[in-house]
Amino acid sequence: MENKIKAGIVGGTGYTGGELIRLLLNHPYAELAFALSRNAAGKKIYSVHQDLLGETEMEFSSELQAADILFLCLPHKESQPWLENNKISPETKIIDLGNDFRLEGEFQNKNFVYGLPEFQKEKIKGANEVANPGCFASAIQYALLPLANKKLLNQVFVTGVTGSTGAGVKLQDTTHFSWRNNNISAYKTLSHQHLDEIKQTLESENKNTVGVHFVPWRGDWPRGIFVSATLECDHSLEELYQAYEEFYKNEPFVWVSREAINMKQVVNTNKCAIQLEKQDNMLVVHSAIDNLLKGASGQAIQNMNLMFGFEEQAGLKLKPLAY
Amino acid sequence: MENKIKAGIVGGTGYTGGELIRLLLNHPYAELAFALSRNAAGKKIYSVHQDLLGETEMEFSSELQAADILFLCLPHKESQPWLENNKISPETKIIDLGNDFRLEGEFQNKNFVYGLPEFQKEKIKGANEVANPGCFASAIQYALLPLANKKLLNQVFVTGVTGSTGAGVKLQDTTHFSWRNNNISAYKTLSHQHLDEIKQTLESENKNTVGVHFVPWRGDWPRGIFVSATLECDHSLEELYQAYEEFYKNEPFVWVSREAINMKQVVNTNKCAIQLEKQDNMLVVHSAIDNLLKGASGQAIQNMNLMFGFEEQAGLKLKPLAY
Amino acid sequence: MENKIKAGIVGGTGYTGGELIRLLLNHPYAELAFALSRNAAGKKIYSVHQDLLGETEMEFSSELQAADILFLCLPHKESQPWLENNKISPETKIIDLGNDFRLEGEFQNKNFVYGLPEFQKEKIKGANEVANPGCFASAIQYALLPLANKKLLNQVFVTGVTGSTGAGVKLQDTTHFSWRNNNISAYKTLSHQHLDEIKQTLESENKNTVGVHFVPWRGDWPRGIFVSATLECDHSLEELYQAYEEFYKNEPFVWVSREAINMKQVVNTNKCAIQLEKQDNMLVVHSAIDNLLKGASGQAIQNMNLMFGFEEQAGLKLKPLAY
Amino acid sequence: MENKIKAGIVGGTGYTGGELIRLLLNHPYAELAFALSRNAAGKKIYSVHQDLLGETEMEFSSELQAADILFLCLPHKESQPWLENNKISPETKIIDLGNDFRLEGEFQNKNFVYGLPEFQKEKIKGANEVANPGCFASAIQYALLPLANKKLLNQVFVTGVTGSTGAGVKLQDTTHFSWRNNNISAYKTLSHQHLDEIKQTLESENKNTVGVHFVPWRGDWPRGIFVSATLECDHSLEELYQAYEEFYKNEPFVWVSREAINMKQVVNTNKCAIQLEKQDNMLVVHSAIDNLLKGASGQAIQNMNLMFGFEEQAGLKLKPLAY
Repeated sequence: MENKIKAGIVGGTGYTGGELIRLLLNHPYAELAFALSRNAAGKKIYSVHQDLLGETEMEFSSELQAADILFLCLPHKESQPWLENNKISPETKIIDLGNDFRLEGEFQNKNFVYGLPEFQKEKIKGANEVANPGCFASAIQYALLPLANKKLLNQVFVTGVTGSTGAGVKLQDTTHFSWRNNNISAYKTLSHQHLDEIKQTLESENKNTVGVHFVPWRGDWPRGIFVSATLECDHSLEELYQAYEEFYKNEPFVWVSREAINMKQVVNTNKCAIQLEKQDNMLVVHSAIDNLLKGASGQAIQNMNLMFGFEEQAGLKLKPLAY
Repeated sequence: MENKIKAGIVGGTGYTGGELIRLLLNHPYAELAFALSRNAAGKKIYSVHQDLLGETEMEFSSELQAADILFLCLPHKESQPWLENNKISPETKIIDLGNDFRLEGEFQNKNFVYGLPEFQKEKIKGANEVANPGCFASAIQYALLPLANKKLLNQVFVTGVTGSTGAGVKLQDTTHFSWRNNNISAYKTLSHQHLDEIKQTLESENKNTVGVHFVPWRGDWPRGIFVSATLECDHSLEELYQAYEEFYKNEPFVWVSREAINMKQVVNTNKCAIQLEKQDNMLVVHSAIDNLLKGASGQAIQNMNLMFGFEEQAGLKLKPLAY
Repeated sequence: MENKIKAGIVGGTGYTGGELIRLLLNHPYAELAFALSRNAAGKKIYSVHQDLLGETEMEFSSELQAADILFLCLPHKESQPWLENNKISPETKIIDLGNDFRLEGEFQNKNFVYGLPEFQKEKIKGANEVANPGCFASAIQYALLPLANKKLLNQVFVTGVTGSTGAGVKLQDTTHFSWRNNNISAYKTLSHQHLDEIKQTLESENKNTVGVHFVPWRGDWPRGIFVSATLECDHSLEELYQAYEEFYKNEPFVWVSREAINMKQVVNTNKCAIQLEKQDNMLVVHSAIDNLLKGASGQAIQNMNLMFGFEEQAGLKLKPLAY
Repeated sequence: MENKIKAGIVGGTGYTGGELIRLLLNHPYAELAFALSRNAAGKKIYSVHQDLLGETEMEFSSELQAADILFLCLPHKESQPWLENNKISPETKIIDLGNDFRLEGEFQNKNFVYGLPEFQKEKIKGANEVANPGCFASAIQYALLPLANKKLLNQVFVTGVTGSTGAGVKLQDTTHFSWRNNNISAYKTLSHQHLDEIKQTLESENKNTVGVHFVPWRGDWPRGIFVSATLECDHSLEELYQAYEEFYKNEPFVWVSREAINMKQVVNTNKCAIQLEKQDNMLVVHSAIDNLLKGASGQAIQNMNLMFGFEEQAGLKLKPLAY
């Protein structure tokens, strides 16, 4: 389709790059123009992402080409040097899936907007450069944003668990099947790298400091994040549900459920499911996303849609896995 | 969209019914008009299929309505009595996902066509009643059809493994998580109920009797079938690959791979992946499908597309799960 | 061996009953005298617990016999009525694996001692009736006991996750393989039935009220509990490690690790692994057990060993699963 | 215990080495004297095999010491050069878990006996050097030995599936959790390296050539092998069951089941479970083992027991995992 916008991917062999390719191959208004890879240049995309057999004959390339939008899917802290070393047309919009530009004011010569659509959609619509949020950061922010909006956050205790794709495609002891299967373990306890972006958003909305005490766990599945956040709160469950429903009422991807949620409800979709529970003055908020979609590449496509004025759900009406 | 065809589902709470709902919600030319359920009538569809939260507010109903096409998702051997007890307009096309009508000549007053699109696409296009193939039957027939076409089949030894959704949503000892996790077991050894439809197709094409010795296994995943068929064959691997590639060259869903395939390549898609290997005069053919899609509901939508003259891939360009 | 004590099991077909049978079959000083079952009486034990093929020809029986010790493996709240309706010799010691007798003072005519060996070993040694702790209760108490001992507990935020055997052998929607595989979900948020026994122990040791805000999750494996407890604490990590090591220094089953722990370290053993982490004034304690062993039947054998003056580890030196 | 025999392990950090350590730590007549490792020398054994926390304070060493028995757990084809480069006392018995010495007559200066206990127990009892069988080789030979003994083998079609520990501890694409979870795939189709040792045993017993057409699959669990072998056979199922029961009647680890078997029945034990099924003149034999125990390290301990005149089951009465 000649009038589709052209999208390029920098770092196309990893999990987020692969997922962007899958989404772009079926997007109604954008097409994959090229996917760069240092190691796989010249190889068929489907030889790396084997599920794409029959979907495309395109090869990974080593040469940057003109594009309407560039997705940076590089290891963390490699996006900024890459942008310095490569000349990008000012017409090209950029979405960085790394964590280089998520904190405000870090790079004065850049104007990256933090790309959490349900937090600041209008700013994203007008942005040329978007810093896509982290996966745990997305799940936790969706769980807490309506409370921040009501200035109800103080100390929050969060446990979250993520699938093995959160650890990347590189082979590691903690992603060896023999070890990870039927196992659970904690990592980066109280010191996860997403805490900064979470606090940046929540504090700007809450107008007050927020303590987020976060214990991340490794889960034994490839896709999916589930988060439970516990905090003191005097409002009734009904009042809180209404506040959440109001906050997300125009959002096509965030769903507040009055029935128990489970992680697999949202796997292989761009949706976030949220549920509230209360006991006395303690509130627990559960949220679930697919870490590669709403937590990474799906969110990036949603941001692209906003930046180009497309329908927000374009290319993101995905059949859930369900089972 | 007013000019979409109207589709009804009979038996909407099971796995194949749920998967049809998921596919119809995003189909460009068809819409879900109703989903019947004896037990869940009046309940929101998303309260049963929880992943559909936010996708539809429709409820299960108990009343048959007018429809352009009816999908029967009933327990095996319940479709035939259901059709006797319910008056269906002759204008309404029918696709039965059960095994009631798969064998030719069983019901003289019915004109069901066996719905294996890659075997008899033209007959399906002209049919009003289609008997959708079984899941193992699909995987095995795709593995062997090009050989039958060349009259190369004699005695075939097949092992296949399927996910827990193949056993249905009803609770059983063999689908209890504690038992099935990290486990494998055989069932219906040499006597699986799909053997008849497999032999019907292969023998009609092979013009000779075919021995299919099939050992089915239960696998410890929800979705996906993987099959390896071993047989004597004097042709070279290259000749055989060319025969397969020729046979499937116009098929949008069946892909012959010269690299090793794996089951998860096709999970959550309507694709079938096939690979050949040879050692001396022994040939092994591997094939992989998603049992709920290419092995059931995806195939049913493909058949609907053919029966109504839609693009064959309409509503079936699904993002793979991949990981 | 004629001088082994005779052990009887009431309710032998469930998960805890089966695990007790497995342990008793190899115990050096005790032997399985009988296993009662209402539904399976007359059936070979290995026809229900198929892994015991070749281990015993014993059948389930319906008749209570004389025994030195009785293990009650009944559904919760059925032990108390069972004891009222069955005449047990005063010579027979009793270990109840249900939750009927865990809270002190509930039944004045009974003298059940709460069977957490690392909390009150001497009382258990002298007891005739022991109430075996709950699985989550065990994991959480092991995580927090040394802090209670130092009077350091105030408000504790706990997330814990358990395997499907925690939900029992009865078929349920939440133990259907298709649903549970690669899934996670919360249940009984802030209201788990083990909270009372946890508070009873911790408050008696802490000499002050303790707030335990507990979010239980369902995990996608059969065996194993992992718990992370977060609380404010001003002591240094080194001081805390020393306190834990001191508290557990003579315990053969509880191990304090200065390296990261993972749940599968202890699966299929009677061990508990504990790890501490600190960030500023926040402390996180991780603990891991096998819910059927240290969380149920292994604990029960440990209690039996104590009650009869056997070596505490007798019959509990189990090869770990490891992978 | 001073009169325990001393066992040394060469290559103690891999899966089979670790499993031997676990077994030796609880063996009544043998003790672990040392475990050699090139890379981990000086490290605590439990820092590599984390489940051994609390079981031993022993470290990996780099220095070969005197021992009554040496277990070689080296990569395939490294045992033979290792034995050439290291001087071993003629008093030291050797069990090689690699595939260097499994084929007769390969090394004329060595007298390795093929260590399949149920095939040639007396020869193993008298041996100083034993070549421990391969994992798939064990499962397939147990399935077919009674038929070879009756000279009933001709062409056999076998599919087998193994867990990820079969692929070793080294990180590989095919043991990345994200890829392997919920996946199945074939490898080394019709060309697995165990075929030679399988044919050596079966043909020596069958007194005739045997065709074994074997398709190995990768399964998505860490431990366990399940095999189904299909062949023509005119004998009745009852006659065949009696032949199997007779053949294995004195074997403490091989169990012939008249009920359906499943892989997890034998996981974490040294047992082999076998089941037969027939349809017309086709026979299917299913067998299941734990690849690291009856398929490797458990078998090695069984062989050690035989070589030293210990009770065959010593140290191998393992609690099954069951769930």
